[in-house]
Amino acid sequence: MTSPTATLLVSCPDRPGLVAKIANFIYSNGGNIIHADQHTDFTAGLFLIRIEWQLEGFLLPRDVIDTAFAAIAKPIEASWQLHFSDTIPRIAIWVTKQDHCLLDLLWRHQAQELPAQIALIISNHAHLESIAQQFKLDFYQFPITKDNKLEQEAKELELLQKYQIDLIVLAKYLQILSADFVAKFPNIINIHHSFLPAFPGANPYQRAYERGVKIIGATAHYVTADLDEGPIIEQEVVRVSHRDTVADLIRKGKDLERLVLSRAVRLHLQNRVLVYGNRTVVFS
Amino acid sequence: MTSPTATLLVSCPDRPGLVAKIANFIYSNGGNIIHADQHTDFTAGLFLIRIEWQLEGFLLPRDVIDTAFAAIAKPIEASWQLHFSDTIPRIAIWVTKQDHCLLDLLWRHQAQELPAQIALIISNHAHLESIAQQFKLDFYQFPITKDNKLEQEAKELELLQKYQIDLIVLAKYLQILSADFVAKFPNIINIHHSFLPAFPGANPYQRAYERGVKIIGATAHYVTADLDEGPIIEQEVVRVSHRDTVADLIRKGKDLERLVLSRAVRLHLQNRVLVYGNRTVVFS
Amino acid sequence: MTSPTATLLVSCPDRPGLVAKIANFIYSNGGNIIHADQHTDFTAGLFLIRIEWQLEGFLLPRDVIDTAFAAIAKPIEASWQLHFSDTIPRIAIWVTKQDHCLLDLLWRHQAQELPAQIALIISNHAHLESIAQQFKLDFYQFPITKDNKLEQEAKELELLQKYQIDLIVLAKYLQILSADFVAKFPNIINIHHSFLPAFPGANPYQRAYERGVKIIGATAHYVTADLDEGPIIEQEVVRVSHRDTVADLIRKGKDLERLVLSRAVRLHLQNRVLVYGNRTVVFS
Amino acid sequence: MTSPTATLLVSCPDRPGLVAKIANFIYSNGGNIIHADQHTDFTAGLFLIRIEWQLEGFLLPRDVIDTAFAAIAKPIEASWQLHFSDTIPRIAIWVTKQDHCLLDLLWRHQAQELPAQIALIISNHAHLESIAQQFKLDFYQFPITKDNKLEQEAKELELLQKYQIDLIVLAKYLQILSADFVAKFPNIINIHHSFLPAFPGANPYQRAYERGVKIIGATAHYVTADLDEGPIIEQEVVRVSHRDTVADLIRKGKDLERLVLSRAVRLHLQNRVLVYGNRTVVFS
Repeated sequence: MTSPTATLLVSCPDRPGLVAKIANFIYSNGGNIIHADQHTDFTAGLFLIRIEWQLEGFLLPRDVIDTAFAAIAKPIEASWQLHFSDTIPRIAIWVTKQDHCLLDLLWRHQAQELPAQIALIISNHAHLESIAQQFKLDFYQFPITKDNKLEQEAKELELLQKYQIDLIVLAKYLQILSADFVAKFPNIINIHHSFLPAFPGANPYQRAYERGVKIIGATAHYVTADLDEGPIIEQEVVRVSHRDTVADLIRKGKDLERLVLSRAVRLHLQNRVLVYGNRTVVFS
Repeated sequence: MTSPTATLLVSCPDRPGLVAKIANFIYSNGGNIIHADQHTDFTAGLFLIRIEWQLEGFLLPRDVIDTAFAAIAKPIEASWQLHFSDTIPRIAIWVTKQDHCLLDLLWRHQAQELPAQIALIISNHAHLESIAQQFKLDFYQFPITKDNKLEQEAKELELLQKYQIDLIVLAKYLQILSADFVAKFPNIINIHHSFLPAFPGANPYQRAYERGVKIIGATAHYVTADLDEGPIIEQEVVRVSHRDTVADLIRKGKDLERLVLSRAVRLHLQNRVLVYGNRTVVFS
Repeated sequence: MTSPTATLLVSCPDRPGLVAKIANFIYSNGGNIIHADQHTDFTAGLFLIRIEWQLEGFLLPRDVIDTAFAAIAKPIEASWQLHFSDTIPRIAIWVTKQDHCLLDLLWRHQAQELPAQIALIISNHAHLESIAQQFKLDFYQFPITKDNKLEQEAKELELLQKYQIDLIVLAKYLQILSADFVAKFPNIINIHHSFLPAFPGANPYQRAYERGVKIIGATAHYVTADLDEGPIIEQEVVRVSHRDTVADLIRKGKDLERLVLSRAVRLHLQNRVLVYGNRTVVFS
Repeated sequence: MTSPTATLLVSCPDRPGLVAKIANFIYSNGGNIIHADQHTDFTAGLFLIRIEWQLEGFLLPRDVIDTAFAAIAKPIEASWQLHFSDTIPRIAIWVTKQDHCLLDLLWRHQAQELPAQIALIISNHAHLESIAQQFKLDFYQFPITKDNKLEQEAKELELLQKYQIDLIVLAKYLQILSADFVAKFPNIINIHHSFLPAFPGANPYQRAYERGVKIIGATAHYVTADLDEGPIIEQEVVRVSHRDTVADLIRKGKDLERLVLSRAVRLHLQNRVLVYGNRTVVFS
């Protein structure tokens, strides 16, 4: 299972023959499918599929596959992504002051749970620079004020380009990115410290405490221009009681946050998440 | 453990000596405490306790206990409830057309999970009358329109009085009770088919589907004048995926609803729930 | 989505081209695939797939599909099952004295959650006969002693044949079926009241209490000649505490049992479970 | 809430007046109780209580409390523990080669989730020495063979004494401690990577995979002379599917292990765990 694979994520209007067409494309070129999972959204009239095959023995050279598949995809009005398992995506982790999600991602990376290269850490504070040093990672601080936000974001975009970043992970980055930034760099995963759509915005634990909920949660989602409204990738919850103070909710919530964020990042890196509308299909 | 017990639910401003005072009251009168659970809300400066003792050998006659405890409660500015385990509360179950919560409560009652007498069923539809007949329970239909609501509620209140009802269980009663009704009969438990405060109001499953959440929930709460805003007693959740249609969410949600509602009703009947502010302490 | 579908469950040694071959079989005959989910067990070198397509517009008559597919299946050494969504399986529910799983299955059947016909109820006791009457179902009692077991099982097998039963659901049937019976009628789902492989055999709740576990569970599995060792379909758990007596574990466990059993039966009836070795693939 | 507190954990044969006696002891000496939670095990005829009060204003000097309480405890045949919240226990963490539980404990300690001093790390391998260095912790390696075990354990006991260790945390220490060692140092918490009593002993994930379970778990327990049979403090589970290989179970299990172990250690450090027989009461 260590030989490299290719993965196609395809979505198109539903019609007969789609599985056959796509499977034939792979088989007729000598590929061995190791994962095929399909979903039909009948409400949307949409067909979605994830298909992964071994590149060893595959007759098409890598740089031709995309073009070759286009010949199949165009007639069925499909949009698709093609990924190779040995093309390692480059990640930028964005933080503010809290270290739990950052440390968790770094540890999981060391433990080879995350097939990615962590290329840099960006923060609006200097607080976590020592962690970057400890893990020998580049660290950039961009303090954000009401006035300098767009200017700073422009520099951040430059940096992302320079570092050839594929994915931003907001690991408790407590600033809102501008709609313009999100439009220019749409591959962003955020962790929100509540069970969305409950408690969007600020201070979810305080508000969960005040509402007296018996379960709290965390949500990992893609970032869109609408705050905390992007497509949800993963959620998890934990039971709380009247004995739990706000500090306890925060402590318990931190465990949820690092679990949920790392699961979402891993699913994304394995090309298991397909967004359509404001929803995700997670081929797990 | 089958001998009758008394239970005190007490809340008062926190100060030293409260546990001792209350425990002494019981011990000095010959009572054996079988459950004592205390909570201090430091934010609110509030002391809350549930204390249950065996009545066998207790020196105070039942009808004197309340008066006797008042002598302790007044100086500490306490509010309290006194319950006897062999005084069986009388329940009215309110339904509309869905039968799953009603049937579940009736089964659990047969299985002796709910220490209560189910005294009548009220509905705005005739749909579930046959279930009432099958279980030999009185059934009353009160169709609700915009115009007749207050009038019908008046009749319902009369009926509740006639049947000496202690607790209303809204087992998927899809009408909103007026603020006036709730003021006159405040002991009402409702099941809401979402993980509150997410998706209050109508069509929570449809909206959960559209939002693309990965977990759905149900919430049992006391009814207040603010819709779906009352003190939460119990919540439970279940994982869903992109494969789940709205119909699947409804099906999975029904399992949550009956579980959560029955747990909340049981906790209430065991006098384990103490409301303060908009929160509950659940001494479970 | 209400038009009838056909479902193939296929397993065979892994090799390239399997998805394409099977998808082509359906497409070339005019079928529209609505669900395709594949799994490769690399340890076992096994390919397993569930594929479901709409029969409307499918060119092959139903009675020819099996033979036609054999031409594809033989060369790839596949074993397969073919099911039609409008061929409703016939179920026999076996019980002893406890009613919770039986009632739950009957209610779910009424609520159209279980695509099956409940054809009869068999019990070693007369205890639940009234429920059978209430639901207008045939009920047969076969008291079991050490001496008459094989004899009674022979009669039960006759009855299963007479009623054309496809699936036995042991809904808290507290007798062990003989290896011979299981060999003759292998389609049996059992609910065991523990988190297997913990606490197989008798009195699992008592033993869970004595061991002081913090979580209890229930397990639905296919029955094999080895007691509580058959392929697991579904499991669920619930948290318990020191406050829970054995009676509480039993009460909480009953909720798990009915949930887990009904989920497993539903998965089976939707042809989502594929057994290989002592494991199941659940295409859910 | 930052002023120091005292906590009594008491167990004795059940009889009337126990709560009053203990609460009076505290109140009559000017203490303000901030947590009181009691449990009666009717099967065992045992009364168990955790009671915590503020030391500020308490009339008895600390070094007298134990003797003073003895006067109450002796007549009721109670065994008890007395703890002060500002007496910080000293921990030794024992590891083999896996770092996830160790790192998790170290992070949580940094995040002030664990009220303890991590005083040293012991391992049978040199593998994790660099982590000890990074966190500036003393590290001792005691390679274990069949022949040198007792000899090494003697040295380890000496070291524990020298470092004044109160609690050993086996954070994936893959050696079995001798019965003699456990008798001499009974305060040991272990994490076992299965849902005990399922899969005790070696290779639980491999065996869980082979059994085809749908949920895996982890268990934190006190160590006794019987392997994996000690009193359970905490358990947690996670859902798995046919898609999960043994490597996936190990990966998912690691998240459980660190969560469960840290919860158990925290509960122990907060003096919330009372062992009786082979069971625990967790006053959480």
